Amino acid sequence: MYRKILMRMRMRMRMMNATRKVVVGWAKEYKRYLSTTTTNQILLSPPLVSVDLPEIWGSTSTLYHHHPSQSPVSHLDEEKILNLVSLEKDVDGFHPINMGNLSMRGREPLFVPCTPKGCLELLLRSGVEIVGKKAVVIGRSNIVGLPIALLLQRHHATVTIVHACTKNPERITCEADIVVTAAGVPSLIRSSWLKPGAVVIDVGTCPVEDPSAEYGYRLVGDVCYEEALSIVSAVTPVPGGVGPMTIAMLLCNTLDSAKRLYGFT
Amino acid sequence: MYRKILMRMRMRMRMMNATRKVVVGWAKEYKRYLSTTTTNQILLSPPLVSVDLPEIWGSTSTLYHHHPSQSPVSHLDEEKILNLVSLEKDVDGFHPINMGNLSMRGREPLFVPCTPKGCLELLLRSGVEIVGKKAVVIGRSNIVGLPIALLLQRHHATVTIVHACTKNPERITCEADIVVTAAGVPSLIRSSWLKPGAVVIDVGTCPVEDPSAEYGYRLVGDVCYEEALSIVSAVTPVPGGVGPMTIAMLLCNTLDSAKRLYGFT
Repeated sequence: MYRKILMRMRMRMRMMNATRKVVVGWAKEYKRYLSTTTTNQILLSPPLVSVDLPEIWGSTSTLYHHHPSQSPVSHLDEEKILNLVSLEKDVDGFHPINMGNLSMRGREPLFVPCTPKGCLELLLRSGVEIVGKKAVVIGRSNIVGLPIALLLQRHHATVTIVHACTKNPERITCEADIVVTAAGVPSLIRSSWLKPGAVVIDVGTCPVEDPSAEYGYRLVGDVCYEEALSIVSAVTPVPGGVGPMTIAMLLCNTLDSAKRLYGFT
Repeated sequence: MYRKILMRMRMRMRMMNATRKVVVGWAKEYKRYLSTTTTNQILLSPPLVSVDLPEIWGSTSTLYHHHPSQSPVSHLDEEKILNLVSLEKDVDGFHPINMGNLSMRGREPLFVPCTPKGCLELLLRSGVEIVGKKAVVIGRSNIVGLPIALLLQRHHATVTIVHACTKNPERITCEADIVVTAAGVPSLIRSSWLKPGAVVIDVGTCPVEDPSAEYGYRLVGDVCYEEALSIVSAVTPVPGGVGPMTIAMLLCNTLDSAKRLYGFT
């Protein structure tokens, strides 16, 4: 079913030459991310336009049809860029209207940010009960911590956000049924931080130098994985846990965006 | 200083006949609220236009200059109404862009919703420390629970939102340094729910029938006030606690809106 829609969309969109990807700034992780075959396949193999735009941001938003802004965008004004993104193309879900609609009860955002959406999908597809459970989110960033907290609350968890100013965070996390950690601090979460049987999603992705690795570094998460394994009921690895889900959800959002724009149902 | 600005603004705005208030729907509490002299004084004594609009909402948004939508708006589609409100006139702060900007770090909403802003003002002016404190918000409504939680988090509290699906809420509230309750359940919060020395803000406002009262009912809060007094360091009464703060913050937002619109600084 999806394959059929994709084929029809690909044909029509190629004819219209409608999909362009513009890269502004060059974080090394993003370069790698773009270079992966999977990502290109996922983005329907669009013609890729890589440009280094100057500091002054022009009216380039007209170029986009499906616009993953992939924050952070290094030296540029993120707020300015996000405000230029059309709401219907905000496949990252970072536009304030999407974030406002995500936070408000009775409203639906056009897009949910990819990583939080991926975390939720992991929980739902793994049959983890969320309603009435205690959930703790570590980190309050706009791109992960905040939206995953809002999503968990939408699914009726009792959510606490732990952050840099929280005193004794381990006393809060060790009571949680679900822990989502996006602190970016390697090995922050030891077994003493976790409740036996908890479900842990590790969004932390910190590059640690490793000359033996292909790119000279490897990615590590917030959780002491081996320690956690002995106590929790489920924990996601880094890499290979949330990362692929983010890419999958980007595809999902991009597909939704294209379906809306081109009237596919 | 403020008086001078107000005088100048009142003169100019009267000349321009710019301030209109349109009432859609007639909740009895709102009728009372509008009838108070204080409110009219606060709203700079605008000419008041009270109309009962039909179900189909027209292009009435052009009538407004400073628009408190005062949700809930009973039988009408709240989302539709809020979407019609100009962002610059959204003195209630309920527009999804304002809510999105309130929720996102590094962004500032044009307006913060009045009741949550009033609660925060009470804490700040009373010298209550917020940074690093455990705060529990009871209720997750768009107009109180959610925005007060976002505000407390902006001030670096560790915030938990407790709601109808939360199991054993009293075990969470009794660890909180700050409790803001907006459940609308009379006498929900007993002393066993509270930590000694906590600061409690009672936003709950439930009309309870009382033939001896002027309007045939009286307003009661979520907190057993007398019980709480014996254990907490501070608690707001109902009525007379958060209510007047809401009105004051509506004035504050309306003034900010007018200053922006008419170029007063």
